[in-house]
Amino acid sequence: MSNIYELALKKHEEWKGKLSIELKAKLEDKDDLAIAYTPGVAEPCRKIAENKDNAYKYTWKGNTVAVISDGTAVLGLGDIGPEASLPVMEGKCVLFKKFGQVNAVPLVLDTKDPKEIINIVKAVAPTYGGINLEDISSPRCVQIERTLIEELDIPVFHDDQHGTAIVVTAALINALKIVNKRAEDITAVVSGTGAAGFSIIKMIEQLGVKNIYAFNRSGVLNKKHSQEYNFVKKEIAEITNLNEEDITLEEAMKKADLFIGVSGPKVLNKEMVSSMKKDSIVFAMANPEPEIGYEDAVEAGARVVGTGRSDFPNQINNVLAFPGLFKGALRAKAKKITEEMKMAAAVGIAKLVSKDELNEEYIIPSAFDDRVADIVADEVEKKAKELGITRE
Amino acid sequence: MSNIYELALKKHEEWKGKLSIELKAKLEDKDDLAIAYTPGVAEPCRKIAENKDNAYKYTWKGNTVAVISDGTAVLGLGDIGPEASLPVMEGKCVLFKKFGQVNAVPLVLDTKDPKEIINIVKAVAPTYGGINLEDISSPRCVQIERTLIEELDIPVFHDDQHGTAIVVTAALINALKIVNKRAEDITAVVSGTGAAGFSIIKMIEQLGVKNIYAFNRSGVLNKKHSQEYNFVKKEIAEITNLNEEDITLEEAMKKADLFIGVSGPKVLNKEMVSSMKKDSIVFAMANPEPEIGYEDAVEAGARVVGTGRSDFPNQINNVLAFPGLFKGALRAKAKKITEEMKMAAAVGIAKLVSKDELNEEYIIPSAFDDRVADIVADEVEKKAKELGITRE
Repeated sequence: MSNIYELALKKHEEWKGKLSIELKAKLEDKDDLAIAYTPGVAEPCRKIAENKDNAYKYTWKGNTVAVISDGTAVLGLGDIGPEASLPVMEGKCVLFKKFGQVNAVPLVLDTKDPKEIINIVKAVAPTYGGINLEDISSPRCVQIERTLIEELDIPVFHDDQHGTAIVVTAALINALKIVNKRAEDITAVVSGTGAAGFSIIKMIEQLGVKNIYAFNRSGVLNKKHSQEYNFVKKEIAEITNLNEEDITLEEAMKKADLFIGVSGPKVLNKEMVSSMKKDSIVFAMANPEPEIGYEDAVEAGARVVGTGRSDFPNQINNVLAFPGLFKGALRAKAKKITEEMKMAAAVGIAKLVSKDELNEEYIIPSAFDDRVADIVADEVEKKAKELGITRE
Repeated sequence: MSNIYELALKKHEEWKGKLSIELKAKLEDKDDLAIAYTPGVAEPCRKIAENKDNAYKYTWKGNTVAVISDGTAVLGLGDIGPEASLPVMEGKCVLFKKFGQVNAVPLVLDTKDPKEIINIVKAVAPTYGGINLEDISSPRCVQIERTLIEELDIPVFHDDQHGTAIVVTAALINALKIVNKRAEDITAVVSGTGAAGFSIIKMIEQLGVKNIYAFNRSGVLNKKHSQEYNFVKKEIAEITNLNEEDITLEEAMKKADLFIGVSGPKVLNKEMVSSMKKDSIVFAMANPEPEIGYEDAVEAGARVVGTGRSDFPNQINNVLAFPGLFKGALRAKAKKITEEMKMAAAVGIAKLVSKDELNEEYIIPSAFDDRVADIVADEVEKKAKELGITRE
């Protein structure tokens, strides 16, 4: 692992930026200049001044996303500031282009004030066709995203919340087929009540899962204690632990068909996995060290196991979601990304694994399966049009 | 001319954005992903968290400029808003890359409040190595630029002010050689007291020109009337019309060795040019229609004539300045662009025309002379290092 860090540092120093701005407009002589710049450029300007939506026709807006962060929750590194978050944001932009053919540019912000972040993103929004929020600490990220979705008419999406949730949902759809259970009938334990946990709980509930226990370091969330919670945990408590049980993780695991971890290393031991219901599903996604290792979970009897790691089967990787999601939303000129569009993305990812291929070690496609972004984009575009939230 | 507009519209619709984001980091398999993104990317993040200046080493910051506008003073179109200004900003980014090999991205802002613009630019600054302000109306642009230069430690440059001023100064340096006059001895009339006029007056004063009359639609600026002026015109009045004369443009032209126009069409007639001192210089740069046409000015007896147009000799085009200026400032990791660096850029442009080549119809190099950006960059980098305002 130290070797990968050294190598990454060396490569980053060589690249001095993983992105380059290249020109679609050629510029070889005065005539080219007169078309791409003055005086010719005045004409598209005039057309857009007549109707702002013409920006989709004559500028980069229709295929360009900003990857915006304040650097407060970067990888496992925490609040390292805007400059230090830049390599991650550039990396995200690389993924947008590589997998979704979407142009993306980083924008890191030297402020942590949610109100100021909201104002800045609103002000810069005319430049872009979509906003991907990234690595903003919870619960601020939820408030920021909600306000922006409400006040802007371009897609705003906080990947740390919904990216993982979409791919977990995709994985769950297929895992349920293997264990032959219905979402409505299972009991789930979710460990982690931050940005990702919040969105996962909402998405699996939408998929049909009724019985969910949500745990964080202090134990199970319980509506009885809502006055102690921030608004995110309050909302989680509203839709989980419906009988308001004071239950330990050990006890809850005994009732569970499904464990989803977006928390930290070693939350589970093998005994807890063994105690789960028959044909259990374990998605242990803490990175780099999961809640329980892939091999330990399998040995302890879990039927389907997924992690965030690329060196084991069933990698739950949000790169499966966001490039295609934005590609489809942009193609539809959607004004927002809704719950329905996220679910359509999850269904799209899931259906790439055919009935014949589906097995315990292959429930979701690889990050490098180049069909993924297109099928996700198609599903998302179709859904946006059905919902009538597109520009045309 | 209508044909160029139709053609430009067609091409813009084909391009759908004149810029494309391309990848310097390849991403073919899981190993590449582990280097360009997680987990490897954590290492450059850590290094930058230790020392912000490491962003120059490991990210795009050191060679990336934001082209920022609020869309309030776009071309001759005026206040057309952020979306409609986007084609111009993209065009500017094309020029940055083509001529200076500098990556540039547009950022258009949906606010006209100077304080808010200042706060936004300060907040996004960690993303970029430099800020090029563009098409922001005067006098707000001057206040915005000044505050940002003071409060940021990366180069901030408002091209509409200084880009033209640098190239005019370069042209003037060479024109004075032809007419064999010293800057100190000439009298100048400047028509236009907006952003460009302001910077031109300050730069030619710095070059040595003492006697300057500044005109706008209301006539000559005169310190006696300062209480009626905004702060830009107040500052102009401080360094022009030193004897506080109530003089008309016609009268002033009779005293003038040099006319510089950054105002509007048909400010001058042939009689006024004929009435100038012997061996007069006329830079009529209103675009597309100059203060007086190139041919009319020559016929009226001006010895050296320059315009903003590419279809006549001596095109005074700010593309000669900004790409090399930023290239040099970024290479030096300069914390700002100073008056001295702008003058160094002007001297660099001027000296590209050799003594042998210099004549009435060739006082400045062509926009497509590919030596320009490099010589400007060299001069600017050298000056920044001399001034001790670089990072290393």
